[in-house]
Amino acid sequence: MNTVSETRLRARYAETDRMGVVYYANYLVWMEVGRVELCKSLGFDYRDMENEDGVFLAVAESHCRYRAPARFDDEVIIKTRVEDVNSRIVIFAYEMTLAGTGQVLATGHTRHVFVNGQMQRTRLPQKYHGMFGL
Amino acid sequence: MNTVSETRLRARYAETDRMGVVYYANYLVWMEVGRVELCKSLGFDYRDMENEDGVFLAVAESHCRYRAPARFDDEVIIKTRVEDVNSRIVIFAYEMTLAGTGQVLATGHTRHVFVNGQMQRTRLPQKYHGMFGL
Amino acid sequence: MNTVSETRLRARYAETDRMGVVYYANYLVWMEVGRVELCKSLGFDYRDMENEDGVFLAVAESHCRYRAPARFDDEVIIKTRVEDVNSRIVIFAYEMTLAGTGQVLATGHTRHVFVNGQMQRTRLPQKYHGMFGL
Amino acid sequence: MNTVSETRLRARYAETDRMGVVYYANYLVWMEVGRVELCKSLGFDYRDMENEDGVFLAVAESHCRYRAPARFDDEVIIKTRVEDVNSRIVIFAYEMTLAGTGQVLATGHTRHVFVNGQMQRTRLPQKYHGMFGL
Repeated sequence: MNTVSETRLRARYAETDRMGVVYYANYLVWMEVGRVELCKSLGFDYRDMENEDGVFLAVAESHCRYRAPARFDDEVIIKTRVEDVNSRIVIFAYEMTLAGTGQVLATGHTRHVFVNGQMQRTRLPQKYHGMFGL
Repeated sequence: MNTVSETRLRARYAETDRMGVVYYANYLVWMEVGRVELCKSLGFDYRDMENEDGVFLAVAESHCRYRAPARFDDEVIIKTRVEDVNSRIVIFAYEMTLAGTGQVLATGHTRHVFVNGQMQRTRLPQKYHGMFGL
Repeated sequence: MNTVSETRLRARYAETDRMGVVYYANYLVWMEVGRVELCKSLGFDYRDMENEDGVFLAVAESHCRYRAPARFDDEVIIKTRVEDVNSRIVIFAYEMTLAGTGQVLATGHTRHVFVNGQMQRTRLPQKYHGMFGL
Repeated sequence: MNTVSETRLRARYAETDRMGVVYYANYLVWMEVGRVELCKSLGFDYRDMENEDGVFLAVAESHCRYRAPARFDDEVIIKTRVEDVNSRIVIFAYEMTLAGTGQVLATGHTRHVFVNGQMQRTRLPQKYHGMFGL
């Protein structure tokens, strides 16, 4: 898989903390924003995968390295790609940079298992295999 | 209805913003904490009302007056009571104070309509009437 | 003041709750997004007002009426305007609608007092008067 | 260091998402709750370290493995300990379990560097060395 999606957002006041920088958990929210955008780039809406196919991406692992702080109203670019995938598991990789300077703010990845609405493991439906490069 | 529930929490770092105080939207989260506690005081778990009876409290209105800022690690007391209720609607009132000094941080109310899982209006089931003082 | 800013965002998964809709406190975060955008429309960055002039918009009151639920990945338009302003206080009004249909999701307002970095009341600096229509 | 702090919280409605479980970024918020509690167990308030000594724990890395979903109103126990520490860096380890059954919900760690108010690297002040077991 070579598709890399790129999406932009601005750091919200709500996302900062009293240290004056973006609170560390919010980078995982930004990863979600990147993930949803990547799905659109791959050819589907993640919402439809849940609503129409009853398949959910349950998070099994998250990892983030914080390299430079993001601040209120900073424009951030999130680059997202599939790092690894099979019919059971998908790993996404992320890079978040400052739009103005290209400075790397954070990098990370998340590992997900495909589950059904009852949180039981399932397989990625056939129709998505091509989009994920399987 | 005279029941007033009282619950305590500590302001989290995540809840502060770069002004060094608790971000204003988080007081609505604290109201939810108070509401859930009030339900327990009234004799039921709000979770069961959703899971077992399929009745949800959809928020129709929120109002909050911010009187003094809460800061990281402050212990906050949330007092919650039913201000008005009928079989269609319930209004909760809240007062949040600083545990150490009694200083009022915020007051507010939320108005809710009873809905089913499809977000359609419904009535409060008979079994809850006594608990709500109807 | 007749300036109305318009900004768009997509409801994040993080912003939904187990009822399947956007959690009510997050509309106040969206109001902040609208507010920051309105400042840009009026001719300044709110970040600069804080960083360069040491003037902050402390929230004194929030009010929101929830008219229809927003759901994950919905595109939302936030219209923001100054409803009232003097050198001590500013009131912003908001309307949030669904981009596709124009359906009104929520309306509300927030009242703010100008404070300094020590959270003491101050006046809006002269340089901003014109931008706010004073 | 053998001190393990234990703190309890209840999963908030705000913390759930439309999958009906606690959203993955919120576990990092819970880690913060555990961290603040561990500092109290070690003999100081983290707030004082910031306010009085101007020393902050900037997060450099976070890692979380999600083992079972937490749901609304679940009582969760967070066990926190110092995994490694020197005068420049501290690593905290966390285990989150369900209070009723002991089921492990998540495990993880965070790595922090000591910084001053300008986000520049500094050393842990001498007065804290004993408390951290240095």
